[in-house]
Amino acid sequence: MQKKSVKHIKIKKVSVHGIVDTEDQLAVEEPLEIQLKFGPKINQTKKSISVTMRTPGNDEELAAGFLFTEGIITHVNQVEEVKPDAFEENKIAVKLFENALPKLQTSERNFYTTSSCGVCGKSSIDAIKTVSVYQNEEDEVEIRADFFYELQAKLAKQQEVFKSTGGLHASALFDLNGNFLILREDVGRHNALDKVIGASFLNENLPLKNVVLLLSGRASFELIQKASMAGIRIIAAIGAPSSLALELAESFGITLIGFLNKEKFNIYSGSQRILV
Amino acid sequence: MQKKSVKHIKIKKVSVHGIVDTEDQLAVEEPLEIQLKFGPKINQTKKSISVTMRTPGNDEELAAGFLFTEGIITHVNQVEEVKPDAFEENKIAVKLFENALPKLQTSERNFYTTSSCGVCGKSSIDAIKTVSVYQNEEDEVEIRADFFYELQAKLAKQQEVFKSTGGLHASALFDLNGNFLILREDVGRHNALDKVIGASFLNENLPLKNVVLLLSGRASFELIQKASMAGIRIIAAIGAPSSLALELAESFGITLIGFLNKEKFNIYSGSQRILV
Repeated sequence: MQKKSVKHIKIKKVSVHGIVDTEDQLAVEEPLEIQLKFGPKINQTKKSISVTMRTPGNDEELAAGFLFTEGIITHVNQVEEVKPDAFEENKIAVKLFENALPKLQTSERNFYTTSSCGVCGKSSIDAIKTVSVYQNEEDEVEIRADFFYELQAKLAKQQEVFKSTGGLHASALFDLNGNFLILREDVGRHNALDKVIGASFLNENLPLKNVVLLLSGRASFELIQKASMAGIRIIAAIGAPSSLALELAESFGITLIGFLNKEKFNIYSGSQRILV
Repeated sequence: MQKKSVKHIKIKKVSVHGIVDTEDQLAVEEPLEIQLKFGPKINQTKKSISVTMRTPGNDEELAAGFLFTEGIITHVNQVEEVKPDAFEENKIAVKLFENALPKLQTSERNFYTTSSCGVCGKSSIDAIKTVSVYQNEEDEVEIRADFFYELQAKLAKQQEVFKSTGGLHASALFDLNGNFLILREDVGRHNALDKVIGASFLNENLPLKNVVLLLSGRASFELIQKASMAGIRIIAAIGAPSSLALELAESFGITLIGFLNKEKFNIYSGSQRILV
């Protein structure tokens, strides 16, 4: 069953001029349970990995992307099928081939914040390094500053659901010529990025070299972590980064840009890739 | 050890006029492990409940607030002590009195999104109703629309860390005369609200009747859930609500306002409390 990502409702608009009844649209938020099926066909194991509050749409990408960015699966050739539950809504299963071995030790909460790795920023970064498939991807990319000034307008052009609800985060990819590649929106910013990475994972487009990831809001540690898992090396955010997001970006040689608008931005790390 | 909530860094500011090296400040993001100590004193159980990425500061409030809004503890008279670990950073323990019984069945992930309650918005709302202590609090509050127009300016005046970093979410409480009561900021919007509720919990100010909760960004299901656990009945957000946030607000008789600015706002539910 395809669920809608926008819900129509009745609201009251209040202003200094009075009150009016009107119709409005909200971004839909619903839980999604992500399940993993693996092991021998005759006695297959089904394990619930996570329940996330997400905006319906592209659930297959979200499920595959989440399992990949959490380090539980590493390549699309492990995946036999990604399919919503036929009988129960808001459940989706990623089914692995019989010989594929998921890394389930990493699935207790986010692997980088378990107490086994210690609880500090540095140990969280170290934990990511132990599972990251594409951490040693090299590039010699250089991009002119002008490239970035236009990204926000290009994002706005694509953000259809945001336009109608104002309630969604977006992640988008652009190639190095500034061409738009993909955009996903979600009430959860981590879900929007998991959908983008999941789409690339399912289409065998990983690692994501020679692309720029644009984030509609702030750059948290979790978003940089997911991007780094996918081999992304250039990230531009409309909002501010956090301290740990920057530390992780530096550690992976990622170019991190923040406070991007149509005439300026800040470079927090990896400035060698930017030509001014 | 008191950790800082702001970090000073060097960045490059790029604009159409060129590039300059300068100093900047980032909101600090670090993991915090929340532990629960309970049971007989001679053989006390210590359980790690959650690791959250948070901005250091008011960790005691965050730990107590999280355990309360997750339904694991219900009253401050259960709590003997809330104390950061003396030897390891980023760990904090909430220690219960010997006779206090934490509701640990609710602590596997967020209780409202576990598969045992089914996976849909309605079952998530039902799950909250089964654990909410203050769901039947009645009020006959009425507030003039003018009250709300001034809140955003009052919030901005208090948001010190946001001013310097641009990277924090805020939750704040005001009394019904518009007086500022408390504000907490965090890289995680759920943490900011847990800190506000945790402070009220520790000071025996629950339920939070006759107050207005102001959210600096969007109103997600998780935020309305936490507010409803604390008995809050009037919530105003600068951003948009989600569909499930609205359903939960309606279900608890909460007044939910969104897109608030200095001259207008939308009423999504509970409009009987607003005098226009």
